[in-house]
Amino acid sequence: MKHTITFQPDNITVTVDQGENLLAAAANAGVYVHAFCGGDGVCGKCKVIVEEGEVRADKATLKKEEWDQGYRLACQATVMSDLVVRIPEITTAGGRALKRKPKTTRTISARSLDTLIGKWDVDPPVAKLYLELDPPTMDDNISDMQRVMRGIRQALPDTPEPSYDHPELIKELPFVLRESDWKVTVLLLHGKREGEPDRIIDIEPGNTTDRLYGLAVDIGTTTCSGVLIDLNTGKIIAEASGYNAQISYGEDVISRIIYAARPGGLRALQEKVVSTINTIIDDICRKMIISPADISYIMAAGNTIMSHLLLGLDPKYIREAPYVPAVSIFPLTKAAGLGIQAHPSVRLFLYPCIASYVGGDIVSGVHACQMAKSDKVSLFIDIGTNGEIVVGNSEWMVCAACSAGPAFEGGGIQYGMRASAGAIENFHIHHETYDPMIVTIGRIKPAGICGSGLISIVSELLEAGVIDQQGKFNKGLDHPRIREGRDGWEYVLAWGQDSLIGEDIVITEVDIDNLLRAKGAMYAGYQTLLESVGLTFDDLDRVILAGNFGAYIDLERAICIGLLPDVDRDKFFYLGNASMLGCQISLTDVKRFRERVHVRQLMTNMELSENTEFMTHYMAALFLPHTDMSLFPTVRDKLPERSV
Amino acid sequence: MKHTITFQPDNITVTVDQGENLLAAAANAGVYVHAFCGGDGVCGKCKVIVEEGEVRADKATLKKEEWDQGYRLACQATVMSDLVVRIPEITTAGGRALKRKPKTTRTISARSLDTLIGKWDVDPPVAKLYLELDPPTMDDNISDMQRVMRGIRQALPDTPEPSYDHPELIKELPFVLRESDWKVTVLLLHGKREGEPDRIIDIEPGNTTDRLYGLAVDIGTTTCSGVLIDLNTGKIIAEASGYNAQISYGEDVISRIIYAARPGGLRALQEKVVSTINTIIDDICRKMIISPADISYIMAAGNTIMSHLLLGLDPKYIREAPYVPAVSIFPLTKAAGLGIQAHPSVRLFLYPCIASYVGGDIVSGVHACQMAKSDKVSLFIDIGTNGEIVVGNSEWMVCAACSAGPAFEGGGIQYGMRASAGAIENFHIHHETYDPMIVTIGRIKPAGICGSGLISIVSELLEAGVIDQQGKFNKGLDHPRIREGRDGWEYVLAWGQDSLIGEDIVITEVDIDNLLRAKGAMYAGYQTLLESVGLTFDDLDRVILAGNFGAYIDLERAICIGLLPDVDRDKFFYLGNASMLGCQISLTDVKRFRERVHVRQLMTNMELSENTEFMTHYMAALFLPHTDMSLFPTVRDKLPERSV
Repeated sequence: MKHTITFQPDNITVTVDQGENLLAAAANAGVYVHAFCGGDGVCGKCKVIVEEGEVRADKATLKKEEWDQGYRLACQATVMSDLVVRIPEITTAGGRALKRKPKTTRTISARSLDTLIGKWDVDPPVAKLYLELDPPTMDDNISDMQRVMRGIRQALPDTPEPSYDHPELIKELPFVLRESDWKVTVLLLHGKREGEPDRIIDIEPGNTTDRLYGLAVDIGTTTCSGVLIDLNTGKIIAEASGYNAQISYGEDVISRIIYAARPGGLRALQEKVVSTINTIIDDICRKMIISPADISYIMAAGNTIMSHLLLGLDPKYIREAPYVPAVSIFPLTKAAGLGIQAHPSVRLFLYPCIASYVGGDIVSGVHACQMAKSDKVSLFIDIGTNGEIVVGNSEWMVCAACSAGPAFEGGGIQYGMRASAGAIENFHIHHETYDPMIVTIGRIKPAGICGSGLISIVSELLEAGVIDQQGKFNKGLDHPRIREGRDGWEYVLAWGQDSLIGEDIVITEVDIDNLLRAKGAMYAGYQTLLESVGLTFDDLDRVILAGNFGAYIDLERAICIGLLPDVDRDKFFYLGNASMLGCQISLTDVKRFRERVHVRQLMTNMELSENTEFMTHYMAALFLPHTDMSLFPTVRDKLPERSV
Repeated sequence: MKHTITFQPDNITVTVDQGENLLAAAANAGVYVHAFCGGDGVCGKCKVIVEEGEVRADKATLKKEEWDQGYRLACQATVMSDLVVRIPEITTAGGRALKRKPKTTRTISARSLDTLIGKWDVDPPVAKLYLELDPPTMDDNISDMQRVMRGIRQALPDTPEPSYDHPELIKELPFVLRESDWKVTVLLLHGKREGEPDRIIDIEPGNTTDRLYGLAVDIGTTTCSGVLIDLNTGKIIAEASGYNAQISYGEDVISRIIYAARPGGLRALQEKVVSTINTIIDDICRKMIISPADISYIMAAGNTIMSHLLLGLDPKYIREAPYVPAVSIFPLTKAAGLGIQAHPSVRLFLYPCIASYVGGDIVSGVHACQMAKSDKVSLFIDIGTNGEIVVGNSEWMVCAACSAGPAFEGGGIQYGMRASAGAIENFHIHHETYDPMIVTIGRIKPAGICGSGLISIVSELLEAGVIDQQGKFNKGLDHPRIREGRDGWEYVLAWGQDSLIGEDIVITEVDIDNLLRAKGAMYAGYQTLLESVGLTFDDLDRVILAGNFGAYIDLERAICIGLLPDVDRDKFFYLGNASMLGCQISLTDVKRFRERVHVRQLMTNMELSENTEFMTHYMAALFLPHTDMSLFPTVRDKLPERSV
């Protein structure tokens, strides 16, 4: 149920879901409210007056007098109806009432790409076929396997004869047939490509056609996720995820490659990711009360290093120039052969990679969003430590990886952290008082800064003139929150008494430098790829954000710092976990699955690490938003004049 | 070098190879010579006079006077030039000189089918391709496997992209490529069927194209043989064979099936045949100083039970009506997976079977002789304990097995033995004295009777009137060799003093009954199959004898007893080890190999065991040669009148 909130005195209207937190609603609407404690209710600053409508809130947090006047703590109030909410004017230390200044920045999210992903059929790459066979007689004593093949031929007269090669299958066949009174269910794996014959991977007694499941797996460097799909209905029926247990051997792909070079290291890494997948299978099967042996296909995607490690391939040469993977199109593998708990003949499909740092997760995502089926030019972006970029349409695609560094995941930032409870995810600054409005994940006291928070903070500081376009602090501002700290100049986001960790949480010039390098690498990547095909940002029809990051990113702010190009906001879409999505679609619809071959063939990798154009663009992008302000017209218009 | 021998006084001329034994030459020419000791030189009966030409012989075996007159012991004489040899007239006990009686039976062997097998190319189903790849650079850093694939595509532009699925191959690839300085040899396995893409089964450092070997294996119930072929030249370069080690668990297929049902029995049988093959590989590799890993393909054929046991498939239902094998088209299997010492990705192809008792050995033989490519109607016969019969041409083929019993292999015959040293292989009887002329394998004292000897003996006894057409002895003949023994009437082939075993070697009525049943089953099989397609023996263009037996069989005598049909002798051909031959051809020429699919599809099995027509024909065939003498016109003409 949606409700409309009108924030006064600026008359800013926003629509939110019932149950939304009022502070978060204000922050997203770009309405500044004093809020120092992240939403924990302890600082008591975020008092607002609910003039019309109903919120759910706790009386105990306010004096009775204030309560009766309609005051509420925004961070403790839950939206229950349409509201008119008044933000009190704030008073400076000097007793002068300061008008709130209407903000230009409100959260604009990219739209979900759901409608563009297209429909898919429930026609999975595995199928079950129930056969009632005639028992053999003296006049009809062909072999058991031939009898099954004849049954299949009669049931599917227009299909080429399937193959079979699983030794256990034919060993057990005579007994399965006789114990089931010649009534069996054949599990057929469709060919990876059109026209290839099916392969018989199992023959089960009786009619088991109602049980047909597939598992989609996203193998992330940090997190692995699994989704169980009922392949008879196409519906997701269970999900599970967990940290990739390889994390104990290193946080990022490079440390994993280094570990793999140690004696036994490769094997240990392979076992860890397999055990992670097995835990996911366990969780899912326990929830659904099915057996792992009921899973008939596993479709997975991961980056090139994760894919190599899962298959036990040495990633050694991925790290050394010229960065060559052992294999980029992985053979269809028996999952049980890798140690995955699965029926012995069930196959694991792993999305092909393009290059050492453009992996199967990207191919899966590009496949999912059907870039390769549209004549519109899309820019596909996966922001992360290793940023991946794809530009193209149905006729051509170029892709590249750029090493952005870990800033977006909180790495290299003094108070950086992953996007978990306590992370500052939204931030506003009052343009006169320079006081912050902080919203944390989980509405608890702040513990640090996550990627989306970092983008918010830097763009707000820039717009407020606290930092200049080089990311340097305006040392002329006399404010206790702007100070010279141990590592140079910094802004205090939260004082120790308002923070979860009991110490001041700050953002430093060093942090901002790291963000500049990260966003600069991404932007330079877009430019280099576009130039390589003779295009500019104006030629883009769509900008597609992959990864969960896309759902939380504030477009205006991301554009403001120069992380995303300054194009029409309506061109932005987000895909969510694109890698998983591709696996799910492929698992459900074999026709879509087969299109991946074309997608992969279309994608041409460009190596940016020693590319001189890229380096030039990168240097020019180490500015907020960019040294060439003509690339960011909307940002130019709103930045304080002095810093242009 | 060929020499002509003229035997006097009957002026019978024969052409033999230099070095041939004179007694054997006489026996094959149908010239009766006294010879009781099989060729051992001890009985001293086989004196002949060499009137012209030269033999090599030992003076010590004769008195000087006889030697000077030109007498020689035929069994000790080796033909060295053209000869005129006089057979002395023999003297009966009564002092009356008996003229030798010219014989009508001389050995007529089927012609070798060599010319009809056709030619085949050296274009084996595996190929090696040497590639010198460009090392990767930053501008060209596709994955190692893609680099190999690109190399293949450039070398073979018109071939579909090969597949790869061997985990070790891709695991080792990065190291193989770099250690060999990007110069490698790719081992490609061509698709089993036309149009299927190749499969990469190995990538070796450097140029190894000069080493490409294939192994053809014939898996017999008794004997296994292997032939190593240099697939670059198509030449056989080594051979080895040995008893199938399963023999310790039973002589025939039925006893193997029974043993397989015991706990651990199947596994033990599988291990035995694998160890037999491994011994053959060892022998061959040691001879040729190659490694088993240099063998790039193994192509094998065996009967249905042998094929099941090799793959570890339970043959249980093969023995129980309605006699159903588990599988008849065997999947291409990794040889190493079965325990065979081979490169881990080398495949073992096993010829498909038709039915429980018409196995891959027969399909291989039928494939080898190209019956399926001719419009001529052929009758293909493999005589043995389990006799297999195929009739057909390029448009249709029917086949059947008939359980002939072990008589042809010496089984069920009191003094029966396998065709090894000491076995009587040729036999003539003097039509007046009823004395024998015995030739043994190895020219040593007789130890027993092998299959071809048995046929000789029975046909000679029949023609001489010693037995009648029911196989019963003519009790009116007063001769010490014709007597009533422990098991009924018998003929003494060798007295104890002339035999290797020190006791009289005899043939009994029971032996002859067993032979009647064996040959009756075969003949009834031909008739039933021909009738099933509306043909008679007159419609046959060729009779093809498979198995080594065919090379030793005396056509006239085999026809005389009714084992082979009484058709034009020029229609008979022998294939030798047809099963092995098919494997060799398939291993050498992939085009011929692919034709096997058509051959197998053409062959329709007929079950004779409960077939009433077969039973009727069988009963009628329990006669020498047959109750219907119109089927055997040439035999009718030469049998003694009294017995017709």
